[in-house]
Amino acid sequence: MSIPWSKMALNTPSSVVRDMLQAAQAPGMISLAGGLPAQSSFPVEAIRDAYQQVFMSGAAALQYAETEGYRPLRAKIAERLESKGIPASPDHMLLTTGSQQSIDLVCRILLDPGDSVLVESPTYLAALQVIHSYQAESHGVACDEEGMLPESLEEQLKRHQPKLVYINPTFSNPSGKVWSRTRRQQAVDLCRQYGVLILEDDPYGEIRFNPEQLDAPSLVELDAASYDGPSNVIYTSTFSKTVAPGLRTGWILASADIVKIAARAKQGADLHSSSIDQRALHALLETFDLDGHIRSISKDYAKRMNTMTSLMAEKAWEGITWNSPQGGMFLWLELPEAMAASNLFTYGIQEKVCIVPGDSFYAGTPELNRMRINFTHTDPELLPEAVERMDRAIQRWHAAAQSDTAVTL
Amino acid sequence: MSIPWSKMALNTPSSVVRDMLQAAQAPGMISLAGGLPAQSSFPVEAIRDAYQQVFMSGAAALQYAETEGYRPLRAKIAERLESKGIPASPDHMLLTTGSQQSIDLVCRILLDPGDSVLVESPTYLAALQVIHSYQAESHGVACDEEGMLPESLEEQLKRHQPKLVYINPTFSNPSGKVWSRTRRQQAVDLCRQYGVLILEDDPYGEIRFNPEQLDAPSLVELDAASYDGPSNVIYTSTFSKTVAPGLRTGWILASADIVKIAARAKQGADLHSSSIDQRALHALLETFDLDGHIRSISKDYAKRMNTMTSLMAEKAWEGITWNSPQGGMFLWLELPEAMAASNLFTYGIQEKVCIVPGDSFYAGTPELNRMRINFTHTDPELLPEAVERMDRAIQRWHAAAQSDTAVTL
Repeated sequence: MSIPWSKMALNTPSSVVRDMLQAAQAPGMISLAGGLPAQSSFPVEAIRDAYQQVFMSGAAALQYAETEGYRPLRAKIAERLESKGIPASPDHMLLTTGSQQSIDLVCRILLDPGDSVLVESPTYLAALQVIHSYQAESHGVACDEEGMLPESLEEQLKRHQPKLVYINPTFSNPSGKVWSRTRRQQAVDLCRQYGVLILEDDPYGEIRFNPEQLDAPSLVELDAASYDGPSNVIYTSTFSKTVAPGLRTGWILASADIVKIAARAKQGADLHSSSIDQRALHALLETFDLDGHIRSISKDYAKRMNTMTSLMAEKAWEGITWNSPQGGMFLWLELPEAMAASNLFTYGIQEKVCIVPGDSFYAGTPELNRMRINFTHTDPELLPEAVERMDRAIQRWHAAAQSDTAVTL
Repeated sequence: MSIPWSKMALNTPSSVVRDMLQAAQAPGMISLAGGLPAQSSFPVEAIRDAYQQVFMSGAAALQYAETEGYRPLRAKIAERLESKGIPASPDHMLLTTGSQQSIDLVCRILLDPGDSVLVESPTYLAALQVIHSYQAESHGVACDEEGMLPESLEEQLKRHQPKLVYINPTFSNPSGKVWSRTRRQQAVDLCRQYGVLILEDDPYGEIRFNPEQLDAPSLVELDAASYDGPSNVIYTSTFSKTVAPGLRTGWILASADIVKIAARAKQGADLHSSSIDQRALHALLETFDLDGHIRSISKDYAKRMNTMTSLMAEKAWEGITWNSPQGGMFLWLELPEAMAASNLFTYGIQEKVCIVPGDSFYAGTPELNRMRINFTHTDPELLPEAVERMDRAIQRWHAAAQSDTAVTL
């Protein structure tokens, strides 16, 4: 029989990146594609000890638990957020199976088919996929290096009357950019003015290469400082980049109403996330110097990023430029107008290096000559070889362009 | 501002049972309400050792992982299923954050607003909630002690042209019943005939009080024995009742197409479930005698069930009867016609004993005089006091009925 798929299933294509990650599994491939943290950075010993702690307290960790998540962990997270200036309390928090679930639950409780969501250009592609799976439309807002342009944001708010503005304002995936304080405040004000919720996705905000130079307060903080009553910002973050993704623990911080309804949705979706992982994270935070660990990861990542950009600079590729991110995990490259990143991807696979074409990161018409590179996952010793392979891929593109075949590849 | 909730949020009421469980938290309350396994049954030491094993293999367990779940665990589960006669392979399996997520993902990929799902009368209430959250309709099929009546199933298949038939045929929640082999085969045949998928939810099937007496093959097995090609049965089960719920690990076993699309849906929902928990379960299954453990839990639960029913029988409550389940975790009581279980619930709370009225377990018009009791979670030493309190609640009902106030309570 043919299976009668739901519209939701039909609107959930396989992630392009996921398919690329499969290509990246080929033997001998160097992958700069996935958004994976450095495996060498995981504090394995400390995590192992934390799990041992969990079982010291007996069988309670193994029973069904609250949908909202292990309260002492919520309290710890709230305490950390408060120390960074973000107003937070365990009662305004829902623990999730990572940021992806946070985004899904927020879309689940807000989006009906035909609704609109505004996003950055470019934006996180897995957020686009979730938005589209709920049969909602995504609309890009024009951005520069400082974030969304307020004129474009206001115009799109008026035009589309969206349910939500989804942003990733600190070391954005894919562009690595950090919104200025002014743009953050403008987005907060405009969304208040038009009565539209903001979803601030902040998985990378703590991975800062020059922490002292950064003036990038959370929009939650700016919203609370300017307006009374329940927050208009839904904030989500995760331990995936600061501790390890395998623990699958993220959180939503939002007004009490939103947390309540998101918890109901989560109850239907999976009752609750792993309480063992949540308790282990709590035990870890009791003794482990997480801030020191994050400083050390950030230093390592800054070094990897510098290695990568130096190697690329040595190649002096004509017409290829990139940003110099101050944190996060990604480089965002702009190629010559004629050089489609999807072609470069194909040549890269032939040379056994995997990059991500930027096409999938746009709500509307994509820029075809953008490309994302992750610098945190590949062993630094392999980076020179990775750049050699990228160089050969680029040469292949030029050769093909000269023989006029590139466009039809 | 008022929050523009999605239809999905508006169609996801808080679980009645969840609210009751909150009532059950009151100090001094004895709760027979939740579907919780005995905490004393959790093999804490073995689980602790299994988590240690996971970290022996280094940092890999902490990285992002496949959406489908840890393949060696899928292989182990497939092996166990095969040993019980259920055709299975890791390629036809998706690991989930427990059965609740399995049900949610199946509904997500199949149900559009207005679609129909057929269910038993009564059926598992959290499945009803998920079905309704996707704005689909649930329709009851008449059942007797042996399962769905084939005439009623066929009539409902014709009338509603459902997307799915959801069943819990072995030690059903709430009724504790076990479908006969004949009824299983009839359901398989009718669903094939009408081209409708079956979702067989089997969390309790291994908790058998008299295993040798049970002739209850999975519908997957019967379907495979009778028909060629992809299975028409989606099977889901979990380690929540056989190991511990806190590990949040269940699985979907289905045709390759369904697993593929469910994995895409899961990718959007949470990327993947905890790989640490999955690896710990795998390590556990390598050394732990799970079958022996399940025999020992089942023996313990049978004893608890007998204690409970003996205590109730001593009370000789007029007009109150119950089943004698051969496995699982629940007793299902029928009260006199006039005795609304919701009233009895209120009197129970006053007497500090919490039971679940049966109303919420029906797709259509509920039976108001049914009540579910869990016998696995409360300390057996408290069962005599629990029954005393139930007795006093019943006396309160009779007293109120005589003064004509019960109906308006």
